[in-house]
This record gives sequence, structure tokens and C-alpha cells, in this order.
Amino acid sequence: MSRFAFYERIYRAFHDRPSLSKLLLVSTVSGGGIVAFSDTTPFRVAYADSAQGQCPKKKVVVLGTGWAATSFLKNLKNSSYEVEVVSPRNYFAFTPLLPSVTNGTVEARSIVEPIRNIVNKKGPHCEYREAECYKIDAEKKKIYCQTTQASNLGGKEEFAIDYDYLIIAVGARANTFNTPGVEENTHFLKEVEDAQKIRQTVIDCFERASLPSLSEEERKRILHFVVVGGGPTGVEFAAELHDFAIEDLAQLYPEVKNLVKITLLEAGDHILNMFDKRITAFAEQKFQREDINIKTGSMVVKVAEKEISTKERGTGHVVSIPYGMAVWSTGIGTRPFIMEFMKQIGQTNRRAIATDEWLRVDGCDTIYALGDCATINQRRVMEDIAAIFSKADKSGTGKLTIQDAKEVVADICERYPQVELYLKKKNMKNFVDLLKHSDSEMQTLKLDIELFKLALSEVDSQMKNLPATAQVAAQQGEYLADCFNRMDMCEKNPEGPLRFRASGRHRFHPFRYKHFGQFAPLGGEQTAAELPGDWVSIGRSTQWLWYSVYASKLVSWRTRVLVISDWGRRFIFGRDSSRI
Amino acid sequence: MSRFAFYERIYRAFHDRPSLSKLLLVSTVSGGGIVAFSDTTPFRVAYADSAQGQCPKKKVVVLGTGWAATSFLKNLKNSSYEVEVVSPRNYFAFTPLLPSVTNGTVEARSIVEPIRNIVNKKGPHCEYREAECYKIDAEKKKIYCQTTQASNLGGKEEFAIDYDYLIIAVGARANTFNTPGVEENTHFLKEVEDAQKIRQTVIDCFERASLPSLSEEERKRILHFVVVGGGPTGVEFAAELHDFAIEDLAQLYPEVKNLVKITLLEAGDHILNMFDKRITAFAEQKFQREDINIKTGSMVVKVAEKEISTKERGTGHVVSIPYGMAVWSTGIGTRPFIMEFMKQIGQTNRRAIATDEWLRVDGCDTIYALGDCATINQRRVMEDIAAIFSKADKSGTGKLTIQDAKEVVADICERYPQVELYLKKKNMKNFVDLLKHSDSEMQTLKLDIELFKLALSEVDSQMKNLPATAQVAAQQGEYLADCFNRMDMCEKNPEGPLRFRASGRHRFHPFRYKHFGQFAPLGGEQTAAELPGDWVSIGRSTQWLWYSVYASKLVSWRTRVLVISDWGRRFIFGRDSSRI
Repeated sequence: MSRFAFYERIYRAFHDRPSLSKLLLVSTVSGGGIVAFSDTTPFRVAYADSAQGQCPKKKVVVLGTGWAATSFLKNLKNSSYEVEVVSPRNYFAFTPLLPSVTNGTVEARSIVEPIRNIVNKKGPHCEYREAECYKIDAEKKKIYCQTTQASNLGGKEEFAIDYDYLIIAVGARANTFNTPGVEENTHFLKEVEDAQKIRQTVIDCFERASLPSLSEEERKRILHFVVVGGGPTGVEFAAELHDFAIEDLAQLYPEVKNLVKITLLEAGDHILNMFDKRITAFAEQKFQREDINIKTGSMVVKVAEKEISTKERGTGHVVSIPYGMAVWSTGIGTRPFIMEFMKQIGQTNRRAIATDEWLRVDGCDTIYALGDCATINQRRVMEDIAAIFSKADKSGTGKLTIQDAKEVVADICERYPQVELYLKKKNMKNFVDLLKHSDSEMQTLKLDIELFKLALSEVDSQMKNLPATAQVAAQQGEYLADCFNRMDMCEKNPEGPLRFRASGRHRFHPFRYKHFGQFAPLGGEQTAAELPGDWVSIGRSTQWLWYSVYASKLVSWRTRVLVISDWGRRFIFGRDSSRI
Repeated sequence: MSRFAFYERIYRAFHDRPSLSKLLLVSTVSGGGIVAFSDTTPFRVAYADSAQGQCPKKKVVVLGTGWAATSFLKNLKNSSYEVEVVSPRNYFAFTPLLPSVTNGTVEARSIVEPIRNIVNKKGPHCEYREAECYKIDAEKKKIYCQTTQASNLGGKEEFAIDYDYLIIAVGARANTFNTPGVEENTHFLKEVEDAQKIRQTVIDCFERASLPSLSEEERKRILHFVVVGGGPTGVEFAAELHDFAIEDLAQLYPEVKNLVKITLLEAGDHILNMFDKRITAFAEQKFQREDINIKTGSMVVKVAEKEISTKERGTGHVVSIPYGMAVWSTGIGTRPFIMEFMKQIGQTNRRAIATDEWLRVDGCDTIYALGDCATINQRRVMEDIAAIFSKADKSGTGKLTIQDAKEVVADICERYPQVELYLKKKNMKNFVDLLKHSDSEMQTLKLDIELFKLALSEVDSQMKNLPATAQVAAQQGEYLADCFNRMDMCEKNPEGPLRFRASGRHRFHPFRYKHFGQFAPLGGEQTAAELPGDWVSIGRSTQWLWYSVYASKLVSWRTRVLVISDWGRRFIFGRDSSRI
């Protein structure tokens, strides 16, 4: 769409003279631009034609426009579905850059891409609705939505949408752990609007502290910024705020610059505890040098208008911390309508919707859930051990030869990823190593179920939940789109592992997450990164790696150019301190 | 400040190695950058030194951060004042580009400049307070302020500031003419926030109209955009909205693009009635071709949630117009606290604060008012005619020779600008022409007061109020700063015209507005301009003139680069349709 717009603008700049525009058309052909130039209209006609005379299309309803949903949409190539996207947010936001938005290193608009740019490229069988789903009826295969636009356009409008497949990718909300006062007095950092509000409030704090009538103590309170949660988001925000304060605001508010204090509260022992210890140590030392106050073992029990109360783990005392602005970044919780839906399908007392390894909601054949609102409910090998054994035991003798075992081992490894992780951890080459027998014994060994159990008894210790990151969500979206693209084909020729508790094979390979590493920007042009293979990289060069990875991962050329030019603007002009 | 930041960033990029940084310092000297690099600290010290041992500085309080106030601040070079700027808006906004912000042609942040960037350059004798003045006490020379920051920073804080000189430059608010429903249901276009809200609402309208459950009639209503007021702002907004809709939104919302309707309501006979007739005619024809509906002679009497009621001048009927979004742009009104202040000083029933030609508030020696909140109360020649005559009549004979008259004519022309305008209009060379006598008679002519009155009897017909534009406000700010810069000097050696009703001369030349022309952007890369000397220019080339004039007038290099790169972004990628 954006390329089209570009060509069209150039085209119009030729004053609509046909001779010149022909020339232009020819030149775009050579550049490969003709497809983009031909607009959506012929594209749509082509789609409509191909659908004529076929059976009615299956309707896929996608809830959400975040990482998982957008990645699904972008990768869905099969036009035999009718797709409807429902979300109150008509854009995709590149959330890893949200902390940069809070301080104006990057503009909010630079990290968003209108979802209609993506949807419209899919043709007329794909629609977007700016609305909020408030109820899912799994039995009637219906969702209920309400509008979210400003009220004077005609009040709340409600409507229902039928679906054949429902894809829930609505993300999560901030988790307050029901701590009193958090909703009212702290800022979250989940949405673009949150980041914009934080930016305004930071400026507000500096302006407020510069007023003539305040006491020194009150000034100090107002310029005390508290970040609750020592995860990557909280740490990055604290680092960005520190840079903003010393690089830009100290120049503009010289009279109060020495009163600024940033405190990071973490209930655990260390910040960034999901990272390698070297990164944690580096970050803690860097923050100490920069006077960013890290308080670990400190659990927030209440947030009042001007004070945060924490319970210290060592002493058990409750301490009161006066503050000006607090950012709450302690992990994710469940959205209310998802909680309602989970109750409906009998999944209570969980943080997120449980799915199988194919991202299908447990107990609902036609509903998929991915991203932060879902977790994959991995099956334990030990739960299925009897079924696995009897499947392997083709002859029905109750004993497996090594050959029998070897034949199912690939399927076991695919179906239960913990097996592979266990082998890797123990430096074993393959399943046979688990049997702890010498090679000569192997040839004649017959496994009974007890021996089989014993061999696999410890693999389940390697079961891991996936982190709630953009990387996981994006991979899940891509995986699911691939499944939908090849649904018919795989229905006929299943490619997945053996079904141990039923006959035949699974249609698809199960979802498998590939970890490409994780960044923790630490401010001052320094970044830490954990890369695959336990590599750790810290420093300025990693910051450049961060710049280039994020620039390449951005969702469109538009956002890429915008973010890079924002970085350039910041470098030249500094960050803007206007309260807008 | 921004240059400093730039150097400092490069400096830091040298990894803080002293040898390299020396090299850098040398290179900046040759580039003339050393002054900028030396930061505000030495600058401040210099100021502080020069003030030592002198009498206490006079305190100048400036209300506002708009065109007039910012222009005053930027041009105030005299460090013998202590300046305090009070405004709820901590930035200056380049308001002529506001209509471009409503549709994303330019970003909000690109047209603002933090006021502290300007204030801090002035040194430590200049301060800014983010607060709102709610009361002026002219007798005690005090203003009362309250804070405007978000509530959880500690509630409303109130404080008072004393002044020696008060400069009121708070601008105006939108004028609703007390039409019911306007405040609640329409958008104004005065502030940056207004523009951002309009942008969101336009997107909201398109998203809402795309929902499946609406009737065709309801969709049409929602996509009916009504602009009330055919002045330059209203016309430019309508044109920008039209471009946004056909260039960008039509691609993204193909199913509703044909339902979009834009209506411009104007109570008078023509839109752009302050412009040359040729411009009005061109604009009306262009809008007609583009299906922008112009309804003249239509006065809005009520705005309900979904309907605007207008009274048609021809028939007197009241007509009801269903609409989705309405923008109210019918001129300016007085801010409540200014109304209060005017009552206090006996200026009731006026639209704005009356000042003399030196921008001093009538009846308040130490208060100045400029920009949209003030009007210059020109004196009529006829009011002062007796005083003028007796001043000219040095000999006291009750008769003036031509020589006597010639001696005061320059002062009359300077004090009463209408005289010059009248002469120009009548193609007269000088005052003597007004006497309508032959040259031979002139030599012996003696004027009595009646003849003198007769000669000047018609000049007051040329008295004109200045328009409420950025251009006027900026020139007033510059003029007043110049007066303040040379206050002491001109106190001793007054440079202004004769005081006709008192002895001596006025300290300063009165303010005289120079009109550099006015633009009316009409969309589709076409602009009309009225240039000095009754020149009219319309078309694409004028659009480029518009681009270059606005780019050069922008307040800092930062805003200049930002706005120009926004134009580039729009050209390449189109406008963004994300609802943020």
C-alpha cells in the first residue's frame, strides 16, 4: 500500500499527463514495481473470480492486532479463508521500542503500522473491525463485540460475528497482583498510549518541581521516579529515563537536576533474573555507578498518591517511599473477558488459556490461542508412557526390541520436546543412551514397560514454559499461518508425529520455539544481549547490534525509515521536552 | 541549546578521551561553534557578574508562550530585567501548521519548540513556570497562578508573582457566540491537542463507518464532516481533510470511500472574505470541482450530538444537517480571566484588551497586552484636533502658516497612521495636498482651526483594526522587546512623535504593522497567496512558496528539519492512519 501511494504521488506530480505517465509505468516495470503499482483493485477482482463456484469459504476470526495476530495475518497466504480481524487498536505496535517512546528517543507514530495496510493487501476476503470482543460463545461459534470509538459518533454499538475458526491473540494486561492503589496511581507500560502518558508525566514532574512555591522536600519527592519490577522492560525504562534526565532535561531544568532520583524496586534477589548472571552483574554495577538506586527483596504492598509502601524481605518491615511518578512493570495478567472464557471452557485458576502444542485451545477444536494470552500445556511423557509403549510394541508381546524403540523415537522426540532438551543437557547423542547399557547388550535387549519408564523417567524435568515475549508470539503467529495455509494438504497427508493415544498421525508438526536471543538495553549507548549458544555480549557494539536487529525487524519500510530517522533526530537535536 | 547538545553528543561519542576532545574543540572554534559549545554556565556567570552592585533588576512577567510572547522573549536582549514567563503550555507552537497536523501531513511534535530552549538561552535572569494565571491585580502589581500538572503530583498549587512590568500575551479562545452545543459537540482548532484529537476522530469516523452492523444512512452521517466558518483555518482544514480522504483513506477504507462528504458552512456570502475576490472565486470553484460542499449564508444556531441546525439567510428556515464530526472555526473570543481583568480596569463590553499604539493597556502604565488578546485602540485625529492645532500654533495666534503645519505633519503621520493610509488611497503626496489649494495660494495661506479640521475631516475613515494573525502577534512581540531593550536610552532621548496632549515627545515610535501577505492553502498542492502591493498568486508554485516561507519562519533548526522531513515522509509513505 505504501509503495503504491509513493508511485501514485510521483505519478500525480507529473500533472496527470498521459504521455509522461506511460513513461513512468515502463520505468517501474523494470524496477519490479509494477505489481505494487497495479493497486488492490485488480488484485481483488482476481480473488473474487477464483472464489466463484467453490464451496463457501471458511471464516477465520482473529482477535487482536499485536505480535501474534499480525504475524499470523502477514503469513497467511491461503485465500480460501474469509478473514475478519477484530481489535480496538487499529494498528500494530512494535512493542520492544515502547520504553524508547516514554522518553522521546523514538516517536510513538514511528513504531506503529496501520493494520489496514496489512489487511487490505490480503484482498477483499480479509476485513478489519475496530471493536472489542467482550464475549466468546464456543458452542454457538460466535463472538460478541462492542465499539470503542468516541461516544458522539452514536453511542456503543454491539454486534456478533460467527466463525469457523477463532484465533485469540489479544495479549495480556499488566498484573497488579491485586496490590491496592496500583491501578489508580501508577503507570503501566503495555500500550502506546501508556508510553505517551509516561512521557507527559515525566515532563510534568520536572515542570512541577521547578515551581517557586515548593519546599525542597516536595521537589525531591516529585523528582523521585520509581520503577516497580526489575525485568527487561523496567530496567530499560529506568535506563532510558536516566539518559533523558542527564542528557536533555539537566540542560533545560538546571535548578532541579541534582534532585532527580530513580529507584528500581525488585521483589527478587536480582534484576534481570531471567538473563545470564554476567548480564545481571554488569547491569547492577552500571546502575550503581549512575546512581540508579536498585532495591532488591522489596515487595510493594500498597501504592498511595504520594507514597509507595514496600515490605522488605530481610526484616519484614514495611517501608514508605515518597515518589513523584511510578511505573508498574511486574509481568502480565489475564484480560477479564479471557478469564470469563476460560471459566466457560472449564479452565479455571490459570494465568492464561491452555493450548496443546498445535496452539489449539484444550477442549475447543476450532479455537486457537497464541501470544501472551495463552500457554502451551505440554504433555508429560510419564502421563502417556503406557500409550507410547503399546504403540511401539507392534507385535503386542509386551516387550520392545531396540529396533521397535528406535522406530518411534523420532516421533517421541517431536511430540515431547523435553526429551531432546534432556539428551542435550546430559550430552547424550540419542535415545539409546538413556538405556545405560553397553553396546553388546543392546543387540539382544528387550525392553519391558518398567525399563522403558525408567529410561524416560527424568526427561519431564526439562519441561519449560515459553516466555511472554514478542519473539514467541511472532513465531506462533507464523507457525499457525503456515498450518492454515496447508490445512487441506495436511488433512490428506498428515506430516506430524504419531498419535500415541489414537490412530494415525497428527496433521502438523507441533509448534517449536527457536530462541534467537534477547536484548537488555542498559542506557548510555550500552546494551546487553543473550544470544543463542549461551553467548553473552555487552557494550557499545551490542547497542549497534540492537539498533540493526530492531531496524531490520520493524514491520514495514515506513516504520524502519521513521525509527532510524528518529534515532538520527535524537542524536542531533536531543529529545523534545514539550508536554505533548 | 540544541547546538550544544549536538556537539556534546559528538563529544561523548569520542569516548571521553581528552586528547580527542581537544582536537574537537579546536575544530569547533574554526567553525564558529565555540560560543554554542561553551554552554549556558559561563554565560550565566557573566550575566550574574554584570548585575552585581547594581540596583535591583526590574521584574518583567510574561503571560503566554504563543507568537507574541515568544517573539518578545527571543528579541529581548537587555539583561537588566528579571524575566518570568508563566504559561500552562511549556512549548511554542507554530500554529499556521495546525491544520496540517489534523491530518498527519505534519506531526504535532515537529511544530513545537520547548519554551525552556528559548528561556534558558537568556541566562539565569529568565525563568519559566508551567502554570496558569487566573487573576491579575493591577493595583498591587501581582498575578495569581495555579498549576496545571496532572493531579497526583500533589493537587493544585497556587502562588503569586509580583511584577514591575506585566506583558499579557495569552491569546484567545474559540468564539462560540454562545451557540448551544458547540462546546460539547464540536472540535476547535486552536491548540496542538485540538489538532491531535481531530486526527483521532477522523480515523474513528472511518473505522466506525466500516462496522458491519450500520445502516447506509448511518454510515453517511458518520462520514459527513462539517466545518463551521469559511475563514483561512476552516478552508485549509477542509482542503487538508479532502486530500487525506482521497489520497490515503480511500485506499484503506475502499468500501466507504464514496460516502465521505465535506461541508463548509459560512454565515457570510463567500468563504475567505478577508482575501482578494480572485482568491475567493478560485477557492470556491476548486472546492466545487472536488465536491467539497460550500454552504454560504448559513448560520449555525444549535449543535446537537448528531445534527447541526442552521438558519438560512434567504428563507429564514432552520435546516437540520446530520453529521459525524464538526470543526468549529469561526473566530476568536476572550479568555475568562482576561474578561475579569478588563472589568477590573473598566474596559467592559469589548472583545479584547484595549491598548494604545505603544501596546500599553489603557489606564495601566505598567501592563502591556499584545497578540490575539489585545487590540490597539487607535485615536481619531478628530478627537485630538484641538490639541494638535494648538501644538502646531507655536506663535499662539490661532492661525497656522504652511510652515507651521509642515513642521508637525511628520509627527501627525506617525502618531495617526490613518493619515498616511488616507493620503495613499487618494494618491496624494503629502499633507499639503489635503488643503486643496493651488500652489500660489499656498504661500500666503493661513489655516484656522476650522480649515485644519476640514482638511483632516476624512482621514479617520481609514482606521483599521489589525487582524488576529500570527504575523501581527510576532511583530508586536518584536516591537515591544525592542522598546524594552532601549527603555533607559529612550527615557533620556525620546524618539517618538510629539505628545499633542502633553509636553515633550513619546519615548518610542508607535507600533506599526507591516503586512507581508497571507497564504490560503487550498489542498492538492495548490495555495493562494495575497502578497503586499495587491499581488495575488495562486497555484502549485505558490504552494512551493508556502513551503519555503513556512520552513524559513519556523522557530528553530530542529522544527525546520522536522517539518521538512515530515513533508518528505508524507510524500513517500502517505499519512498514517493509526488511531494514536
